[in-house]
Amino acid sequence: MTQAPPPKKSVALSGVVAGNTAISTVGSGDDLRYRGYDVRDLAEHATFEEVAYLVLYGALPTKAQLTAYTERLASLRGLPAPVLRVLEQLPATAHPMDVMHAGVAALATLEQEKSPYTPEGARAIADRLIACTGSMLLYWYHFTRDGSRIDTVTDDPSVGEHFLHLLHGKKPSAEWAAAMHASLILYAEHEFNASTFTARIIAGTGSDMHSAIGGAIGALKGPKHGGANEVAFEVQSRYESADQAERDIRERVSKGEIVIGFGHPVYRTVDPRNVLIKQVGRRLGEAQHDMKLWTIADRLETVMMETKKMFPNLDWFSAVSYSLMGVPTNMFTPLFVIARITGWAAHVIEQRQQGTIIRPGANYIGPDALAFVPIASRG
Amino acid sequence: MTQAPPPKKSVALSGVVAGNTAISTVGSGDDLRYRGYDVRDLAEHATFEEVAYLVLYGALPTKAQLTAYTERLASLRGLPAPVLRVLEQLPATAHPMDVMHAGVAALATLEQEKSPYTPEGARAIADRLIACTGSMLLYWYHFTRDGSRIDTVTDDPSVGEHFLHLLHGKKPSAEWAAAMHASLILYAEHEFNASTFTARIIAGTGSDMHSAIGGAIGALKGPKHGGANEVAFEVQSRYESADQAERDIRERVSKGEIVIGFGHPVYRTVDPRNVLIKQVGRRLGEAQHDMKLWTIADRLETVMMETKKMFPNLDWFSAVSYSLMGVPTNMFTPLFVIARITGWAAHVIEQRQQGTIIRPGANYIGPDALAFVPIASRG
Repeated sequence: MTQAPPPKKSVALSGVVAGNTAISTVGSGDDLRYRGYDVRDLAEHATFEEVAYLVLYGALPTKAQLTAYTERLASLRGLPAPVLRVLEQLPATAHPMDVMHAGVAALATLEQEKSPYTPEGARAIADRLIACTGSMLLYWYHFTRDGSRIDTVTDDPSVGEHFLHLLHGKKPSAEWAAAMHASLILYAEHEFNASTFTARIIAGTGSDMHSAIGGAIGALKGPKHGGANEVAFEVQSRYESADQAERDIRERVSKGEIVIGFGHPVYRTVDPRNVLIKQVGRRLGEAQHDMKLWTIADRLETVMMETKKMFPNLDWFSAVSYSLMGVPTNMFTPLFVIARITGWAAHVIEQRQQGTIIRPGANYIGPDALAFVPIASRG
Repeated sequence: MTQAPPPKKSVALSGVVAGNTAISTVGSGDDLRYRGYDVRDLAEHATFEEVAYLVLYGALPTKAQLTAYTERLASLRGLPAPVLRVLEQLPATAHPMDVMHAGVAALATLEQEKSPYTPEGARAIADRLIACTGSMLLYWYHFTRDGSRIDTVTDDPSVGEHFLHLLHGKKPSAEWAAAMHASLILYAEHEFNASTFTARIIAGTGSDMHSAIGGAIGALKGPKHGGANEVAFEVQSRYESADQAERDIRERVSKGEIVIGFGHPVYRTVDPRNVLIKQVGRRLGEAQHDMKLWTIADRLETVMMETKKMFPNLDWFSAVSYSLMGVPTNMFTPLFVIARITGWAAHVIEQRQQGTIIRPGANYIGPDALAFVPIASRG
C-alpha cells in the first residue's frame, strides 16, 4: 500500500519490520492514520475520548457509545487509599514521570490484571489508567507543594479538563478544553515508536498490562522520545524575542548543535501533526494576547528549515501549547503518557493476539573465548 | 566468529541483529560466555559478586577488588523510610514481581540518576539495586504476613545469603550459600533476551537506569521469559512420583500441550546452563535427603527429549533448587531479577555508548484510508 521511508543511521532496526499492526500507519512517511482515519480529521472534529475509543475498540463510537464511554472514564478518576499513601511518600523533587511510573506500579498490586488475559480485561485497565494517571500526578503535586489532599474525583466532561481542573483548582475555559482534546488526540498513537515497542516486548513475554504500561512510561521519559517536549520548551523559553532566538540558533546550528523538537525517526519531509498543534498554539496565544513563545517557535521553524532542512515534530508546538495553559514543564511528558496509554494498550492486545515473543539477535564484538583464571592467580 | 542459529517462527525478530554487544555471546547456540568466560567455569569457581563485577565492570576482579566490591554491595542493603512506607501499602496478595517493580519505581524518585548519565553513575545504581531489591521484597513479605518491620541490613557475606537470611530469619548453610552463588551466576546475563532488550530500548530514548530496570522487571515477569521458573515448578509439583509424572506428561504432550521449562529462543540442542543447575539441585536434594522433586524433573527431562527432542532450559532445575531452599514459588522470578540487574545495567551502559534509539518498522495490515464520519451521521 505504501512505501517505507529509507532507514536512518541514528535509529537501530530502522525500517526493519518487527510485526504486523492494524492500529495505525505513518503511510509513506508524511501521513498518519489511526484505524484508517486521518489524524488531522480526528484532531479537528473529534474529542479525545472519541479517539481513545477508536484506537482501543477499533471503530468510531456512535453518539450513545461515546456518551457511555466518556462517562465511564469519568467514573474511574478516584484512587484507592493505599495508592494515595504511596504518592505521599514520593518527594517533591521527583520527576513527574517517575511519580506516574511509581503510581502505576503501586496500582498494579491492588488492581492486578486477571488471568487468563483478555482484550476486555486489557481495555478495562487501559480505561482505568487513562482516567486516573492524571489523578495520581496531581494528587502528589498538591500534597508535596502544600500538604493538601485533593479530591481527584470531579465532574469534568473530559480527560483534558479533569487534568487542568486538578492542576489549577478551577475548571478550564472552552478554548483550553478544545486545545487539550486536539493535543491528546495527536499524542494518542504512533505505530512502533520506542515506548510502544517496549510495551509490545513486555506483552510478548506473557506479562500483564500494568507491567507493559510501566515500561512504556520509562521509555517515553527519554529526551529522544516523549521527553523531547520538555527539552523543546527549554529551548524556546531561553529567548526574549524571535530575532534573538534566530541569531542564537543560527550560531548553535553552525557549531553542529542538535535542536530537540525537529526531525523524526519515521517522517521524511514533514510531521503531519505539526500543522494542527501549531494552530492550537496560535489560538491559545491569540485568545490570551500572549504570542511571544509561539512567535519564537514559529521563527525557529523557519530557521531550522532554511539552515538544516529540518521540520518541527509534534513536540515543538505542544510545548508552546502546554506552556500557555500553565502546565509545568515537567508535566508535558506525563500528558503525553495519558494520551498514549490508548495506543500502548491497543498494541498490547494486538501483540498478545500475534502470540510471539520479541527477541532479536546481537552482533558479538567482545573478546574471544578466555580461559578462567582462579582468583589467587589474578592481578 | 560464530554462526547464528536459524530463526524461530514463534520469535519476532529472531536472528535479526538489533545492535552490537561485547557483554556476552551464546556462540553457535550451545554455548554461553560472559565477557569471554565460559559460564560453566564461572558457576563452578566464582562467587556471584565476582561475576556481577565481571559483567558490570568488564574484567574479573582481583582479590582486593572483589573484597571491596562485596563489602560495597553489603553496605547498600538498607532502604530509605519512604520506600518502607510504600512497601507497607502493597497488599499481601500482590505478585512479588509487582512489589519489586513498585519498590524500584519508588526508589527512583528518591535516588534519581544524576544527569549527565555516566557509566560510573549507572554502575552505582546497579550496585544499589542488586543489593536492595531483595530487601524490598522481604520487607514487604514479612510486613504483610505478620506486621513485622524487619531490619534489612545484615552482615551476610553475599547477596544470596542475605536473601535467604531475610526470608527464613536465619543464616543459610554453606550448601545453600553455594547453590545461590551458582544459580545467580547462571541467571546474571543473557545477551539480547526480551527483558534486556526492553532495558536497551528504554535506555536508547535517553531515559534513566531505574526506568530501564523497571521496564525489564515487567518483561521478565512473563511466563515465556523469567516467569517460566514459576510455571516449571507448578508442573513438577503436580506429581507424587517420577512414574506418575512420566505417564501424565506423555499424555499431555500427545495432546499438543506445551511444557514450560523446555526449549529456548536461541539454543538449538542444549541449554549449557542446565548441566550446572541440575548438579546444584542434586547436591541440595542429596544433602537434605529429599530427591523427590529432582527425580521427577530428571525423568521429565528424559521424556521431553524422547518425545519432543526438547531440552530443559535453566528454569527447569532452578525451580527444583529454589524449592529445596524453601523459596516461595512466586519469589523464583524475583531472584532472577536480582541476578539479571547486572546484565541489564551493563546493556544500558553499552546502549548509551552506541547512542542510537531503537525504533523498528511495522507491517501495516489495517484498513485503507477511511473518510471521517461526523458523529451525528454514525450508527
